[in-house]
Amino acid sequence: MYRLDINCDMGESFGAYTLGTDTEILDIVTSANVACGFHAGDPATMRKTVAMAVEKGVAIGAHPGLPDLVGFGRRNMDISAQEAYDMVVYQIGALYGFVKSVGGQMQHVKAHGALYNMASVNSTLADAIAKAVYEVDPSLILFGLSGGELVKAGDKIGLRTASEVFADRTYQQDGTLTPRKQKDALIQDSKDSVAQVIRMVKEGKVMSQQGVDVQIRADTVCIHGDGAHALEFAREIRSELTKSGIEVAAIGRN
Amino acid sequence: MYRLDINCDMGESFGAYTLGTDTEILDIVTSANVACGFHAGDPATMRKTVAMAVEKGVAIGAHPGLPDLVGFGRRNMDISAQEAYDMVVYQIGALYGFVKSVGGQMQHVKAHGALYNMASVNSTLADAIAKAVYEVDPSLILFGLSGGELVKAGDKIGLRTASEVFADRTYQQDGTLTPRKQKDALIQDSKDSVAQVIRMVKEGKVMSQQGVDVQIRADTVCIHGDGAHALEFAREIRSELTKSGIEVAAIGRN
Amino acid sequence: MYRLDINCDMGESFGAYTLGTDTEILDIVTSANVACGFHAGDPATMRKTVAMAVEKGVAIGAHPGLPDLVGFGRRNMDISAQEAYDMVVYQIGALYGFVKSVGGQMQHVKAHGALYNMASVNSTLADAIAKAVYEVDPSLILFGLSGGELVKAGDKIGLRTASEVFADRTYQQDGTLTPRKQKDALIQDSKDSVAQVIRMVKEGKVMSQQGVDVQIRADTVCIHGDGAHALEFAREIRSELTKSGIEVAAIGRN
Amino acid sequence: MYRLDINCDMGESFGAYTLGTDTEILDIVTSANVACGFHAGDPATMRKTVAMAVEKGVAIGAHPGLPDLVGFGRRNMDISAQEAYDMVVYQIGALYGFVKSVGGQMQHVKAHGALYNMASVNSTLADAIAKAVYEVDPSLILFGLSGGELVKAGDKIGLRTASEVFADRTYQQDGTLTPRKQKDALIQDSKDSVAQVIRMVKEGKVMSQQGVDVQIRADTVCIHGDGAHALEFAREIRSELTKSGIEVAAIGRN
Repeated sequence: MYRLDINCDMGESFGAYTLGTDTEILDIVTSANVACGFHAGDPATMRKTVAMAVEKGVAIGAHPGLPDLVGFGRRNMDISAQEAYDMVVYQIGALYGFVKSVGGQMQHVKAHGALYNMASVNSTLADAIAKAVYEVDPSLILFGLSGGELVKAGDKIGLRTASEVFADRTYQQDGTLTPRKQKDALIQDSKDSVAQVIRMVKEGKVMSQQGVDVQIRADTVCIHGDGAHALEFAREIRSELTKSGIEVAAIGRN
Repeated sequence: MYRLDINCDMGESFGAYTLGTDTEILDIVTSANVACGFHAGDPATMRKTVAMAVEKGVAIGAHPGLPDLVGFGRRNMDISAQEAYDMVVYQIGALYGFVKSVGGQMQHVKAHGALYNMASVNSTLADAIAKAVYEVDPSLILFGLSGGELVKAGDKIGLRTASEVFADRTYQQDGTLTPRKQKDALIQDSKDSVAQVIRMVKEGKVMSQQGVDVQIRADTVCIHGDGAHALEFAREIRSELTKSGIEVAAIGRN
Repeated sequence: MYRLDINCDMGESFGAYTLGTDTEILDIVTSANVACGFHAGDPATMRKTVAMAVEKGVAIGAHPGLPDLVGFGRRNMDISAQEAYDMVVYQIGALYGFVKSVGGQMQHVKAHGALYNMASVNSTLADAIAKAVYEVDPSLILFGLSGGELVKAGDKIGLRTASEVFADRTYQQDGTLTPRKQKDALIQDSKDSVAQVIRMVKEGKVMSQQGVDVQIRADTVCIHGDGAHALEFAREIRSELTKSGIEVAAIGRN
Repeated sequence: MYRLDINCDMGESFGAYTLGTDTEILDIVTSANVACGFHAGDPATMRKTVAMAVEKGVAIGAHPGLPDLVGFGRRNMDISAQEAYDMVVYQIGALYGFVKSVGGQMQHVKAHGALYNMASVNSTLADAIAKAVYEVDPSLILFGLSGGELVKAGDKIGLRTASEVFADRTYQQDGTLTPRKQKDALIQDSKDSVAQVIRMVKEGKVMSQQGVDVQIRADTVCIHGDGAHALEFAREIRSELTKSGIEVAAIGRN
């Protein structure tokens, strides 16, 4: 039986500022990565997002980011491993407060933006993040780029991990994502996108931009809640996954 | 048998800025109120403070404040009850992350500065804070000004509460603290200060500035870790309390 | 000859967050109040907003607010007069940097949100703000609620002032705005709104909610750039003012 | 006639946090680099620092940093040239407000910490910073590491520049500073330190760690206001410079 988790970043509103289509996207995804106030999100948004996720039966994860609100956590920062550890413990804890207050459970942790990207290729940062997750709660599942350092670090320390793939991105023959700066980084056609994900799940392979197949593990696929056709695509991919015999379910539900 | 908890605010350093004498004061107090990053403190400071408290056997509490770093959380803000609830849940949670990561336990919550002062006289805010504490963890002890709204709100919702008195402050005949702006707000002589605390514990009374005795409950006394003679006074009061037959112990240790 | 300035708050986007319809509203208004990074706005947004205003010939003003990004500067804070002075000097200066960098000129200063509201009724705060504006640049025009303390403080210190009225708000018989919490605070019909503004300009009077006429001075009217019908109403009021023989021009252009 | 400017970072206190010995160091240095609120400093501190500098006749400069208060602006961030431009314009402007409010003048701009370090070796960032300074006020003097990209960028755009040397750091044979991580990065003996600076001024040379002389230009020397012997060393270097016939004066005073 094939299975796949669908995750989406959310809870990214802040104060007077609204971002994303959380209410709608929560009807489609199975895991919610909730911003924790460093790159986006604020206490009120966290409370509302957690409540909605619980109501709609979507699994909740912390989405810790760099302390860079104006840059949305997307700018690499030269942080130490200890700093990475500290900011992850803090943010998991903060979200944990809201999860506990509604009697819910936290399923996973997924680093955000530049923190995710840096840790995907930097084993020292990855180890620090994995340690932070493990020491706060060893039952949490650590999300990381399929084949990247976060998954390795999580496996090593004894966490359950989820290998993440991206629906709208192309891959290189070494298994990494094609950098966004390159022309062919994004898959334009939603059918191609869906087909790629289905193949990753069923065959454990993806066709790289160099024309050769690459092995890849897909436990969870990341989709987006904002952008012109985000909701439409989200519904399409969920529907097509199901049609093709892949069970769509939160990673922690088995 | 008389007992008293001694609490002190700490973990108030931030980034390159150092504040307080946490290492020394932790040898004297029984409960530590740890800043959670809104009015003071940062993830690294929280981690270090929690680790030191655990090492020295001092009970740990969250010390949530207003989101006003430049004002050190001392300026009243016209926040709603919902906002108070949200910021308290967030901050307790954040500290909880560090406490869990070292396998420790959180004993209590004490609101900081303007949040404490506003909630001491505003039952709506007090109820919101008590609810936040209760919903995150009903076993937490809520600290509040003796006779004030926080203690009432905690009692009402079913939390264990601790009535707090201040070693260096004088009292009015209605049981409130003499406002800091008034000349006679502070007790200058440490002997008078100690005597007042001992009487509050043993007789449940304090002599007001109006010359009449007022009933007061003292479960925990707040002392300071900064200032010229803070450590000296801290040692004196602990020693004198013990000499007078009052057991000095963390509020949660019984 | 009757004249009126139309002002609007703008530059309120922040990082990844977009707010308002600045591009469109700048075609309608004559004075732009640009957020300076405390309650909203960031350096990039300030640069873009100033550049657009210069390009469209709209007069530029600083819109300093309280240091409360998550509350959008709308929550009263118990700041001292000195703190008000400092935060206004800082924010005017910051915007001044962008205005100078494009060779433009700053016309005015209008306090934002809670800072505006508090200073409208608190002469100490109003004096501090007026002093800040005057000491940075005595040629700046200080905007303030018509009949309020800011205008008085500006007049007193020797600043040119602009008495501000609100298009969509009703008035009390003492000349103050009907508090937003009251049912009848807002004018629902845009025709009534326009008629009220025209009468304030031509007759210097407004009909209060108590049914009696009140004297009021209208140098500038505040309109909004967000909300469902904001642009539509902005165009309507500008067009109707012109039709009724009132020249619409920036306050500083005469 | 030999001349040298002595500059020092200051105004780095924040809210309840005090840093540095500004009052004392201002009696010794000739140029003050005032923090502008991003990596350190706040409006009140900026006001006080500017007032003290004016009173003591010390030339004032803006000291813009990265938006990283908790990291004190010392962590490299992957910012774009446009972001560097924007944050420098903002911060110069903010300080400009305080300088104007006391009728003073701004002499220079020196980037802080990681922003300074990154721009010293990155011509794109250096050009953006030089452009920001130039467009706000072309009469400002741009400080930069002697031989680094900031000085080149300033020269290119038409700014007056000041080549900065460091009193307590050793140099490599390519003219760069020995990285702080290396053992021999710091000069331990104050006599050696003074001798190195005097030789840089009089001969335009410094002995590198590789044992060969390197050409170096010294317009201004950076000293520190905190640390155990900072004030003592500051007095010593000023005194020794004067004794050796080097006039100590602010860079802009000629």
